[in-house]
Amino acid sequence: MADTASGPGGAGPGTAAVTVAGTVAIVGVGLIGGSFGLALKRAGRCREVIGADAGSLDRALALGAVDRALSVEEAAAVADVVVLSTPVGAFPELARRIRPHVAPGAVVTDTGSVKGHVIEALAPVFKGRFVGAHPIAGKEHSGVEAASADLFDGAHCILTPAGADPDAVETVAALWRDAGARVTTMPADVHDRVFACVSHLPHLVAFALMATVDRTRPGGVDPAEFAAGGLRDFTRVAGSNPVMWRDICLTNPDAVVAMLDAYTRDVDDLKQAILRGDGDHLLSAFEAARRVRGRVAP
Amino acid sequence: MADTASGPGGAGPGTAAVTVAGTVAIVGVGLIGGSFGLALKRAGRCREVIGADAGSLDRALALGAVDRALSVEEAAAVADVVVLSTPVGAFPELARRIRPHVAPGAVVTDTGSVKGHVIEALAPVFKGRFVGAHPIAGKEHSGVEAASADLFDGAHCILTPAGADPDAVETVAALWRDAGARVTTMPADVHDRVFACVSHLPHLVAFALMATVDRTRPGGVDPAEFAAGGLRDFTRVAGSNPVMWRDICLTNPDAVVAMLDAYTRDVDDLKQAILRGDGDHLLSAFEAARRVRGRVAP
Repeated sequence: MADTASGPGGAGPGTAAVTVAGTVAIVGVGLIGGSFGLALKRAGRCREVIGADAGSLDRALALGAVDRALSVEEAAAVADVVVLSTPVGAFPELARRIRPHVAPGAVVTDTGSVKGHVIEALAPVFKGRFVGAHPIAGKEHSGVEAASADLFDGAHCILTPAGADPDAVETVAALWRDAGARVTTMPADVHDRVFACVSHLPHLVAFALMATVDRTRPGGVDPAEFAAGGLRDFTRVAGSNPVMWRDICLTNPDAVVAMLDAYTRDVDDLKQAILRGDGDHLLSAFEAARRVRGRVAP
Repeated sequence: MADTASGPGGAGPGTAAVTVAGTVAIVGVGLIGGSFGLALKRAGRCREVIGADAGSLDRALALGAVDRALSVEEAAAVADVVVLSTPVGAFPELARRIRPHVAPGAVVTDTGSVKGHVIEALAPVFKGRFVGAHPIAGKEHSGVEAASADLFDGAHCILTPAGADPDAVETVAALWRDAGARVTTMPADVHDRVFACVSHLPHLVAFALMATVDRTRPGGVDPAEFAAGGLRDFTRVAGSNPVMWRDICLTNPDAVVAMLDAYTRDVDDLKQAILRGDGDHLLSAFEAARRVRGRVAP
């Protein structure tokens, strides 16, 4: 496998066509897998992008997200890089299926939102050839229909190399740079705590809020009828793929529970201030929240 | 005061100019007060819209949200309808100031997000001439600069008549229909529980989340750097006016604390499911959240 894009930032889209990774097989061609295929084809430096999926790949082929559809085993056998892009709960079974077929020297990577658990499951199988990756991108709608070649442009993609071979790490980094992403590396446990904070916790917060709203009927009135901005802002998050979120919770439980505990204390802090009528405390908490907002969404 | 728009829906904007409410004085000309002024002037059925504010009214006059600026006392003296549109914490002091000036028969109303507390404070002062109102509208930005004549078009405006005189209720209803709103009436305690659910709770949830994020630095990394959709969706809510939200919490404490308690139980339910690895429970909770989302943001 040629690995010619090793400088910081690598060769971006639109530079001379150099084959970076030969044949890339994407297993699970939804929003992320499909967008990765489209972005790699836009960059034009892979020989072929192959799709493998539990469902039909007709849409992915029609949209040009993949060049060819094969079974998971066939795709693994011809790939220089295998990209697992299903919900993470499916990874152990996929690893078992592809292990006998993956060529020596080929690289296995993923796009999962959780890294510690994934490395524990896949590094023993693929040794130094497995490189964990997490592109930070999403959309309101899931599925390959929502995929787009520019989904990762300017987005972070975090690699958690752990014990991976340096050339395997560089191959995966080059692919993501080709796809438009800014590549960062991070220890898996730091990654899992960062995303428990900025992604997993907010999703759980929104899921729980929907449950509370669902049960509330003051004087027989359905509050949802009167939902304005306050509640509506949470609904995009609450509409996320339930299977993906179940898998995230089950595979990053320690960091997620720690964030839920910290968050519950912050909710209780506001509640106690309300109970004692402490307007100064509430005001300073709300002003602080406004400042954090400035950091999060500048 | 003529009250000619008494049918359901009233006379909408663009119908023949009939003076509904003579002179309307808006005390506190920010996003809501300013938009109400613009909408009433669009409808063209009030004799005059007067503004009174703690700050300068230059912008409100330049934007055409009010015809004339007076002191609170002067405005109250010439008004057929006085609309209190400051944060609700300022209402008791404003009531004390305007009471000696309000003409017999004039109507006093408000736009506050909390109704029980406001009625307790104002109904003893203005008797049957006080009508509580809450237009359900907002924007990311506050202040009169963000005001627009169409802010209430199609929005709910909830009246909580309590012991108000029927003609006073109809005057306020007619003004809000003129402003484009759909007028609904509701007991104040039901209103306060409905909005504790769909508005006050979501805001507190977002404020608390910002506090949690602010304190979290896994491995020295600032998670805000990696905030994608999950967290960003909450930031608009967390950027709301801190004084307004302090006042809401202090004036609707029972309903807000009850919702916080219910919500904390729902957060804990998800936490317990994660701790026991109960994927089925998480999946069904997340699927239920997705269905609620469909009801809230169809």
